[in-house]
Amino acid sequence: MTATSKIAAILNPGRMLADGIPYPDYAEAQRRLEGGEDWFDIWTDISGRYEELGLGARADGLQVSAGEWLWHASLSAHYAQFMWFHDPQRREAGQRAKVRLYELAAPHLRPAAERVDLPFEGTRIPGYLRLPPEAAAGRVACVVLIGGLESTKEESCLFEALCLRRGLATLAFDGPGQGELFFDRKLGPGFERITSAVVDHLEQVDTVDRDRIGVLGRSLGGYYAVRSAACDARLRACVAWGACFDLSDLDDMPTHTRAGFAYVTGLDDPETAREHLRRSIDLADVAGDLRCPTYVLHGHHDAIFSLDQVAKLRNAVTAAPIEIHVEPDGDHCCHNMGAVVRPRMADWMARALDEAGVAR
Amino acid sequence: MTATSKIAAILNPGRMLADGIPYPDYAEAQRRLEGGEDWFDIWTDISGRYEELGLGARADGLQVSAGEWLWHASLSAHYAQFMWFHDPQRREAGQRAKVRLYELAAPHLRPAAERVDLPFEGTRIPGYLRLPPEAAAGRVACVVLIGGLESTKEESCLFEALCLRRGLATLAFDGPGQGELFFDRKLGPGFERITSAVVDHLEQVDTVDRDRIGVLGRSLGGYYAVRSAACDARLRACVAWGACFDLSDLDDMPTHTRAGFAYVTGLDDPETAREHLRRSIDLADVAGDLRCPTYVLHGHHDAIFSLDQVAKLRNAVTAAPIEIHVEPDGDHCCHNMGAVVRPRMADWMARALDEAGVAR
Repeated sequence: MTATSKIAAILNPGRMLADGIPYPDYAEAQRRLEGGEDWFDIWTDISGRYEELGLGARADGLQVSAGEWLWHASLSAHYAQFMWFHDPQRREAGQRAKVRLYELAAPHLRPAAERVDLPFEGTRIPGYLRLPPEAAAGRVACVVLIGGLESTKEESCLFEALCLRRGLATLAFDGPGQGELFFDRKLGPGFERITSAVVDHLEQVDTVDRDRIGVLGRSLGGYYAVRSAACDARLRACVAWGACFDLSDLDDMPTHTRAGFAYVTGLDDPETAREHLRRSIDLADVAGDLRCPTYVLHGHHDAIFSLDQVAKLRNAVTAAPIEIHVEPDGDHCCHNMGAVVRPRMADWMARALDEAGVAR
Repeated sequence: MTATSKIAAILNPGRMLADGIPYPDYAEAQRRLEGGEDWFDIWTDISGRYEELGLGARADGLQVSAGEWLWHASLSAHYAQFMWFHDPQRREAGQRAKVRLYELAAPHLRPAAERVDLPFEGTRIPGYLRLPPEAAAGRVACVVLIGGLESTKEESCLFEALCLRRGLATLAFDGPGQGELFFDRKLGPGFERITSAVVDHLEQVDTVDRDRIGVLGRSLGGYYAVRSAACDARLRACVAWGACFDLSDLDDMPTHTRAGFAYVTGLDDPETAREHLRRSIDLADVAGDLRCPTYVLHGHHDAIFSLDQVAKLRNAVTAAPIEIHVEPDGDHCCHNMGAVVRPRMADWMARALDEAGVAR
């Protein structure tokens, strides 16, 4: 299997298109891939086309198009480097292009995304805060969005839109091992401390209601979200968009997912990386502390996190009201039914934070 | 070629997905079609699933999801009946389902779509008015959206969103031969009188600036838009999303498009229908009267309207500033590059109406 055909096999069009890749771009990439072109080059090329359009629109004073096209440029760069672990130099170039392009798009998005860089133990946590129109009239609830192994803050733009339409502010950030923070900090234990630093910041934002902050994590971010909510009672609601209790499934995961996990540890020796991962990702020590309302979405056919993960979570969460929804036809994160499950998670979060406000 | 395989060949995923069909639904329909299921039934089934979700959300007070899912239900019903001319009974059922479901969705969309039924010579012109947030602060510019042979007011929801984000109000309606008005009025000459009745209405809407009303038509609607703007000087800007000057290409069009044209005349005899069509659709008598700034988008590879149509339009429009953009890689209406051309048309319209406001 060549690197390129491996990438093509990994990519899930349900995911790519639900996150904003236009169908014609996806179809073009498939066509060019079959014609022998390199996946990284194809998406870098597509990204370049949108960057040119976006910069042209910006120069021409067309703010909305500038934001939309630069966001398309960023997302295309994201998929160029997606799972591109075998070629770290281009992986890094793609990652940095994604970050740069989203930063260009951010002020032009509707509503705008405000870049934040939160000081944390010698580094900075990069994130984007977006406010719904309701924030003009008073404090709003806010949901902290956490990515997974290969999803980063730039990929949640459309999910943010779902939240924003429901009156929720959003703060998406990269933690250790994720996106641009990977270059500074690799995956390790203690992710919850980063989330708490993000909550510290939100408590200072005068348009955000500090009593109505929730957390939602996607894929491996489902693990981070539960861990964060268990460790920080200021988080009043939690959504795990995919259940992950620990990495006991690691050896049974697809090869490329295992390669991704090893990569984000920054460790060269596979056995050392494996042990580091299994020690770093485990809810056993904190699951019993989770107190806030929690919603777990899982696909029955998830090829990465097995149903054992759901069962472990169900058993270990003893002190929180928890609602677990396993979609019988769902794949990993139910990306094959995004139009059904994504609004549902946003609705659940909006309602849970509403109720947190009433309870205060 | 069976009816079902014909439908599958006609459908353009670029169009379907740019108008809002989620990729997993498109993929499911393809899969089930290959498994021998009937295209109409598949999409009716998908529509039913969204209707159930939408009604459930509405009952549960989840306004945003109610709007989004009922809109998905409407759009799925639209594609069930799309080009389904060989089976008028189900064609009508699908058309009526689309209309009913969009009407259910309308008040829950963000911003809401307000249904209007404008009295016109013994019938009513059905349409939807949507206002951008800017309308709360003063009168806004408005673009009148016209569908084509098979696109109707319910299909423009995402294009409306592009306009709304740029501060434009939208009014989409069905004219003779289109959507729900087909049951009352077939395609014929004089479409411009309907558009003028719509403008009459907009002049009475106190959030709309009567000096900044434009018109945009898609596919055959490109013909209607130019005709309407040529005949009504209250229209200050015009976009033809696809050039159509006359039906001299009719005999060379794909079989299913010819069948569609015959169908919307309501005439049984093919030769009579053909003559009626060629008499009804011709800009020769009015093109010289067009005065407002006009933008024409056309795909070089359009299989329905040839480049001759672009040339005829260019030659006949002698009194209006006209900008003609032929995309070298574009298909019919450039549906294969929607993320590039759609924002561009919305930007052009927003700017042209801005300038109309300054000129007053």
